[in-house]
Amino acid sequence: MCTAISVDAGEHYFGRNLDYEHTFGESICITPRNFSFTFINGKKTDYHYALLGTALIKNNYPLYFDAINEKGLCMAGLNFPGFAHYFSKNRNKINVASYEIIPHFLSLCENVEEAEHLAEKINITDTCFAKDMPPTPLHWIIADKDRCIVLEQTAGELKTYDNPVGVLTNSPSFNMQLFNLNNYLSVTSKEPENRFSSKINLSAYSRGMGAVGLPGDNSSMSRFVRAAFVKLNSVFGNTEEAKISQMFHILYSAYQQKGCVAVGDQYEITNYTAVYNADKGIYYFSTYDNPSVFAIDMNNKNLEEDILICYEMYSKHKIDFLN
Amino acid sequence: MCTAISVDAGEHYFGRNLDYEHTFGESICITPRNFSFTFINGKKTDYHYALLGTALIKNNYPLYFDAINEKGLCMAGLNFPGFAHYFSKNRNKINVASYEIIPHFLSLCENVEEAEHLAEKINITDTCFAKDMPPTPLHWIIADKDRCIVLEQTAGELKTYDNPVGVLTNSPSFNMQLFNLNNYLSVTSKEPENRFSSKINLSAYSRGMGAVGLPGDNSSMSRFVRAAFVKLNSVFGNTEEAKISQMFHILYSAYQQKGCVAVGDQYEITNYTAVYNADKGIYYFSTYDNPSVFAIDMNNKNLEEDILICYEMYSKHKIDFLN
Amino acid sequence: MCTAISVDAGEHYFGRNLDYEHTFGESICITPRNFSFTFINGKKTDYHYALLGTALIKNNYPLYFDAINEKGLCMAGLNFPGFAHYFSKNRNKINVASYEIIPHFLSLCENVEEAEHLAEKINITDTCFAKDMPPTPLHWIIADKDRCIVLEQTAGELKTYDNPVGVLTNSPSFNMQLFNLNNYLSVTSKEPENRFSSKINLSAYSRGMGAVGLPGDNSSMSRFVRAAFVKLNSVFGNTEEAKISQMFHILYSAYQQKGCVAVGDQYEITNYTAVYNADKGIYYFSTYDNPSVFAIDMNNKNLEEDILICYEMYSKHKIDFLN
Amino acid sequence: MCTAISVDAGEHYFGRNLDYEHTFGESICITPRNFSFTFINGKKTDYHYALLGTALIKNNYPLYFDAINEKGLCMAGLNFPGFAHYFSKNRNKINVASYEIIPHFLSLCENVEEAEHLAEKINITDTCFAKDMPPTPLHWIIADKDRCIVLEQTAGELKTYDNPVGVLTNSPSFNMQLFNLNNYLSVTSKEPENRFSSKINLSAYSRGMGAVGLPGDNSSMSRFVRAAFVKLNSVFGNTEEAKISQMFHILYSAYQQKGCVAVGDQYEITNYTAVYNADKGIYYFSTYDNPSVFAIDMNNKNLEEDILICYEMYSKHKIDFLN
Repeated sequence: MCTAISVDAGEHYFGRNLDYEHTFGESICITPRNFSFTFINGKKTDYHYALLGTALIKNNYPLYFDAINEKGLCMAGLNFPGFAHYFSKNRNKINVASYEIIPHFLSLCENVEEAEHLAEKINITDTCFAKDMPPTPLHWIIADKDRCIVLEQTAGELKTYDNPVGVLTNSPSFNMQLFNLNNYLSVTSKEPENRFSSKINLSAYSRGMGAVGLPGDNSSMSRFVRAAFVKLNSVFGNTEEAKISQMFHILYSAYQQKGCVAVGDQYEITNYTAVYNADKGIYYFSTYDNPSVFAIDMNNKNLEEDILICYEMYSKHKIDFLN
Repeated sequence: MCTAISVDAGEHYFGRNLDYEHTFGESICITPRNFSFTFINGKKTDYHYALLGTALIKNNYPLYFDAINEKGLCMAGLNFPGFAHYFSKNRNKINVASYEIIPHFLSLCENVEEAEHLAEKINITDTCFAKDMPPTPLHWIIADKDRCIVLEQTAGELKTYDNPVGVLTNSPSFNMQLFNLNNYLSVTSKEPENRFSSKINLSAYSRGMGAVGLPGDNSSMSRFVRAAFVKLNSVFGNTEEAKISQMFHILYSAYQQKGCVAVGDQYEITNYTAVYNADKGIYYFSTYDNPSVFAIDMNNKNLEEDILICYEMYSKHKIDFLN
Repeated sequence: MCTAISVDAGEHYFGRNLDYEHTFGESICITPRNFSFTFINGKKTDYHYALLGTALIKNNYPLYFDAINEKGLCMAGLNFPGFAHYFSKNRNKINVASYEIIPHFLSLCENVEEAEHLAEKINITDTCFAKDMPPTPLHWIIADKDRCIVLEQTAGELKTYDNPVGVLTNSPSFNMQLFNLNNYLSVTSKEPENRFSSKINLSAYSRGMGAVGLPGDNSSMSRFVRAAFVKLNSVFGNTEEAKISQMFHILYSAYQQKGCVAVGDQYEITNYTAVYNADKGIYYFSTYDNPSVFAIDMNNKNLEEDILICYEMYSKHKIDFLN
Repeated sequence: MCTAISVDAGEHYFGRNLDYEHTFGESICITPRNFSFTFINGKKTDYHYALLGTALIKNNYPLYFDAINEKGLCMAGLNFPGFAHYFSKNRNKINVASYEIIPHFLSLCENVEEAEHLAEKINITDTCFAKDMPPTPLHWIIADKDRCIVLEQTAGELKTYDNPVGVLTNSPSFNMQLFNLNNYLSVTSKEPENRFSSKINLSAYSRGMGAVGLPGDNSSMSRFVRAAFVKLNSVFGNTEEAKISQMFHILYSAYQQKGCVAVGDQYEITNYTAVYNADKGIYYFSTYDNPSVFAIDMNNKNLEEDILICYEMYSKHKIDFLN
């Protein structure tokens, strides 16, 4: 499945793991301001905020998995099976197909507040992008430097939740994920003391024992707890390099190693890890077979263009030999 | 603390995380065959197997944390506090100081069988390397392509254990760590089915739920279980790059992120991760602030020399910008 | 807090633990058919189904904690702090004070279906029974031989949930408690096999290891899981005595021992355990300091009366000396 | 399997659950001082301390499962499969058959210190009591008012361990069980506070959440932890009745409910729970199908006799109807 985090570490960082049993042919894609979007509700957006993110390009349309815009608003769609529910079109709402959610919000909204207002008016539809591409059940994390929210449309209704943790994984609903953290309130990064009983001597025979109880599997609830713990306890260095490194370490704590999550006779792995500096408009990434971190800076391109600019994601492994 | 693994993935791979709240000034060090070792038991080794590993160099002596020799024998020393016990010299044994264990074994032994025979004869002494360097409580993992053992000297006696899992972390004793795996025998990488009761419908709402119960904290027993699970379920690719990548992924599953393991007001982190191709004599590594993987090939050097050859470990972070 | 279960074991059995840091002066109370109830909505019920259960008697009013009626409909109120929400009176609904819920439903409804219809029409009010008795935040389990439901009124609205597990404890909402069982789908009463890895030998060194992962603490979510596991896997004997014994064993698996759940400087304990044979109209109970089981049969009394019939609950401990 | 505890609650209390998939025909048995024991080492004990405990009587020999003597020394044998190792006779030791351990120690030793001295001299043999009764793999808990020890003979050697917790269950070795408690040092009976992170609000939504992490299954390691937690945190009342009740509550926390521990197509259950007041020489018990507590006082009998005095254990269920 997937894990996303939003972090204020001086500048605003946002990141996600995309976990699946195969890649989709995704690349890193800049959508400049004059690229024209036509949405299913008839709206056409000729000039809009520029976008940078991971997308599958189909028919010259960027199906974004995660992205930021030039204003620093960040979004990622994460699997939400068994809970996501898309309706047919509703004439009293702004209808947005599930695959349009990211471009729709990021091309129009400057920050979370605007996204929240937009969310009140929309109806997420079950429209297919193409005949052979049924909609994926998703929910979305939306973050700017100051706030983080979650957008979910279930059989009940569309809801936005404040996300004080800045973490999203998968099912169940965000309110359950957040409530579940209460079950781990005793887990600590600090050195533990004996609270079991004063009648016997117990001691920490190892460092890290304050966090005994933290779940180690890759289910969505366990990844949520683990990513929240690592994120909230993270100590960031001062340089951009150190901060980026810490972002990758947080996301690696929710990593899916090949062989550990069987899906039939295949294995789900973390295909890529993306980390954004949302203030600077930079995209950093590593892929399963290539731990090296590469970067793309949207400001190194002319954002006034009208054509998608894409970069290959799954380059070959590159190990630097020092001798 | 630390985590080490030994893996047969076509070729023999060996690796370790070194976790501590600061670095020691270690570097990657090749000890060529003619470098002269003088051991505390009086033995002098002028010509011996060449070594490659991570070492702190003091007074021109390589204090190895982990290393391999040119025959493919691998060793790593891992913290063993509260259990390791070093004796004073014993005239009926071959006395070896704890800091000499790795050079002693790797300069003399070709494989685990020879190491095992040597272990029967030695007494690990509490000799200090220098006045201000008291011995560190350690136990050692020793591996070749076919076998893996653990060497521990406790208050009771020196023991070697067969290590069928190919994993070592820290305290308690290896036999307890190995026995503890039984408690996780139900944990699986496979998709789970409802075994709770046939009277209700329960289902896996997320991938990875077969492994619910796997511990996620960084204590030595939890890291042992987690590293064993990831290692034993790992699926390796066919290329050297893919295999190296998988080795790093296994070790990253036992990683210590900055802020998650407090030691007083400092934090233990994984300073470096080393992965060896023991068949080829290549050392790969990444460091906490630099996820890129670098490599050193011992065969690119003349191993007949008599002077240590060292490479800096903590280079600056290097992110490749693609635009 | 509390735990309640509903079981079909040939006849319908229902039971609950009442956990608190002190008793309330409750007794076992039969409310005969002609006892007159006047509800806050003005309704007066002069002739109704007879009730049997545990109640605190105040001003000749039976404040029932749990009860059944002569038709076999069973109810228990359990603490629901942080979630229960009572509204002020609503003229479009049948207003029922929270303390009236059990007598209201049990005096009027013959089975769960009728209770469900009644639930659709009511509004649970925050009316105090007396000035010094503010309403307790509760939710209710309602069961007959064929079905079990849960009644909850939160800040959102009043809801009834189907309860396929036949268990209720405390917060959070029942839908979260039920969903949480999915996290334990691998836990089994069967002998486990090694699923961790075929590459090492792991074995069950003890019986009962299939259920490793079952939580052992007394929080409401842990008790829910444990009581569900024990209940759903329970094997009942053939005699009334054996069935009653098994009901007590299930409830004892969620017991709160004195000293284990501190509330300030007091301790929450299981004050009493009540088990009903709902088909026969018999109430069985034990108390914290008296493990012996006592019983009261409502059919041994004339149910046409109009006066409450009460039996002391906290009798002295009675141990039978056999010599 | 089984669970035993030793508690100082003003007077010395000792107790155990015996868990198995069937009963053995055991009864409560007083062995008076003049009952003659002939041990396999040739020693004959004509006059000795009187014993009271649970025993299977075969050929007029009391095969004790657990017992105390009139001096207040307490013992129980608990299953120790995969670890217990009995040797053949050794002419340099006092040979004691495994089935003789309890009568041997209790007829001769006044307290733990004497038992410890005796233990140094013995060799536990693999002698069968009868052709069709091979020895059961056992270890033993031995306790007086002041101390508690464990006696184990493994393939290595016979060892006694100090038992500061006063709990014994089954495999693995006691030192592993004791060490394992360190993993639960954060578990507390107190109300927990948020230690996860100060950056989010987490709170205890239920009482008892300080003990989240306590294992709830019936494996021997989990029962050890749970029984230790409940015992060490137990608050005892002042009366004999309240103390006895608390002893049963501790042991019930390690109870095996019918259906929860499958052994092939049978189920292991707690056949009986025995609690001793070792100071007073009283035996209290309940059985799976009869929660009522019965008692036998050894001082109500003439302990100078030479014939075993037995009481039936599995009496019929007896529920007191109050109306």
